[in-house]
Amino acid sequence: MTSASAISSAGKLQPQAVRPGLAPGAAPVAGVDIGGTKIAVSIFDAAGTKSRITELTVKEGTSDALSQQVLRLIDTSCAEAGLPRSALAAVGVASCGPFALRSGRLELVAPNICGGMAGPARGLPNDWLSLPLEAPLRAVFSSVRIENDCVAALEAERRWGALQGVDNCAYVTWSTGIGMGLCVDGRVLRGKHGNAGHAGHMFVSDNDDALCGCGNTGDVEALVAGNAIARRFASQGYADAATLLIAATEGNTRAVAIIDELCRVLGRALYNLVITLDLQAISLGGSVFCNNRDLLLPRLQAQLDGKLASLTEGVKLLPAGLGEKVGDYAALALVS
Amino acid sequence: MTSASAISSAGKLQPQAVRPGLAPGAAPVAGVDIGGTKIAVSIFDAAGTKSRITELTVKEGTSDALSQQVLRLIDTSCAEAGLPRSALAAVGVASCGPFALRSGRLELVAPNICGGMAGPARGLPNDWLSLPLEAPLRAVFSSVRIENDCVAALEAERRWGALQGVDNCAYVTWSTGIGMGLCVDGRVLRGKHGNAGHAGHMFVSDNDDALCGCGNTGDVEALVAGNAIARRFASQGYADAATLLIAATEGNTRAVAIIDELCRVLGRALYNLVITLDLQAISLGGSVFCNNRDLLLPRLQAQLDGKLASLTEGVKLLPAGLGEKVGDYAALALVS
Repeated sequence: MTSASAISSAGKLQPQAVRPGLAPGAAPVAGVDIGGTKIAVSIFDAAGTKSRITELTVKEGTSDALSQQVLRLIDTSCAEAGLPRSALAAVGVASCGPFALRSGRLELVAPNICGGMAGPARGLPNDWLSLPLEAPLRAVFSSVRIENDCVAALEAERRWGALQGVDNCAYVTWSTGIGMGLCVDGRVLRGKHGNAGHAGHMFVSDNDDALCGCGNTGDVEALVAGNAIARRFASQGYADAATLLIAATEGNTRAVAIIDELCRVLGRALYNLVITLDLQAISLGGSVFCNNRDLLLPRLQAQLDGKLASLTEGVKLLPAGLGEKVGDYAALALVS
Repeated sequence: MTSASAISSAGKLQPQAVRPGLAPGAAPVAGVDIGGTKIAVSIFDAAGTKSRITELTVKEGTSDALSQQVLRLIDTSCAEAGLPRSALAAVGVASCGPFALRSGRLELVAPNICGGMAGPARGLPNDWLSLPLEAPLRAVFSSVRIENDCVAALEAERRWGALQGVDNCAYVTWSTGIGMGLCVDGRVLRGKHGNAGHAGHMFVSDNDDALCGCGNTGDVEALVAGNAIARRFASQGYADAATLLIAATEGNTRAVAIIDELCRVLGRALYNLVITLDLQAISLGGSVFCNNRDLLLPRLQAQLDGKLASLTEGVKLLPAGLGEKVGDYAALALVS
């Protein structure tokens, strides 16, 4: 179990000593985790998680549908926790990206939610090009912090998870989409618009037989993300990622061959990150990975081992130390 | 001409006001530029370049051959400048990488010099696995600074060239090999062993028909670097990169098709950098690029334009503002 340990900068194992949470006596906060498939809203106080609710991410209606859903879920979650909305000291939002800045406020330009980016061929039931997020939240709450979900998860993994004490590292989610948060020389990378880490849209292969929600054909997300698996392999009998992964775990030869190829593609992206940034470790999370790590982890690690040894030697791929809670704690990390 | 201008963080054109050089009254320094093909050593003083000599990089003999060559060239260059070696205040070395730290001193582990990394199939006339560099220089000079050549060139381009005022940027050389220096949020990236930027060894294509000096098959450097062109296309009548590039410039259809494919591969690597790090601009140099920029620049830019617009919109590929002098000034930037 890596959930109870982490490697230090010097590569030594360290005990994981810090429990995620607010400081003693701190006022309650809401943590919102917006993914391409579902939204989770948790209320935290100094004692821990007071309430948590999830719902499928809205993909229909007007472009304020998502922010209205988030506000409604915060209210419901507060009610479950027995708190008025006004008791919240802050709202942390960890969301799939990218973001665009419009009139000084962040909007979502997310390929797995905004159907207008790749057009009708991608099959999303809307033609949204971007979604207001920061403005409607700030109209209600005085303290709001919104970050890319993988940047937030990276912060959580560095504070409480598998990346404690690691100065050169990444967090990568293999979920509905592929997202990444990057840290080099002890600093989280942001870039010109805070969108550093969108390396799921990297090209590592010539396969151009898959359309990404961003409009690219054949980028990593288009080839391996949870929603890509369904689109690419339904005709071979795998209606969704779970069906394929179960078949591969049971040893079905055709399913294993597909998993080998998916891991080759994502593993190359991880290798590209390591040699571009001279990383020490990458923590992996997301629903596709977390539910199948024994199947996937050695296949991903094999794409690093033995290549350009001066940069990859000793580099570890680690399951997220916070496990399936990494998304919730990512949002918490933003406001604690 | 971008050599007289640069874009600011806000994307505006700025005049290039600062001339590369030492402060008035500063003592002379040596700048050493170690490439996979040749080594250049310059002596600079406050008035400018006092002397400059170049020689082909040694690839035979014992593993101290390279450091002995560097020391000899510094002596010769000092003699040409009419200075004793003892007059040098510092030695700056900008070298192709990667580096490895052995007994606290940097050694070179460079695929285009060390023949032992990929073995005999790569055709280098030695079996070196690494080359001492810092230790023999420090035995002679009290002040030595060694950096990856593209990190040094990035510093020079940010101080005096096309990247002045740009906080999220890269310098990329297309030369004997492919090298990169990276800057995000105003800070040059180093990584766990200072080897960040070795993204020339990235995979962007499934073509595995080319052996890199690092031992990889089909990475970007193996497919497009100057020495790769000779290895891959000699059988088609292009004995070296220059022959191919002249034929393409003259409109030879087969040569143009090869150039299109090389630019697709390198352009994808540049796109990968931009979306991974949310960059504003990339400055390009190196002998292959500098001698053919009208042919190559639009083909590379085409690999960015229109892809994942929220990250690539407005991102510029720029010829190095320091032109063919970027290597010399890179070494100078380390000690001025």
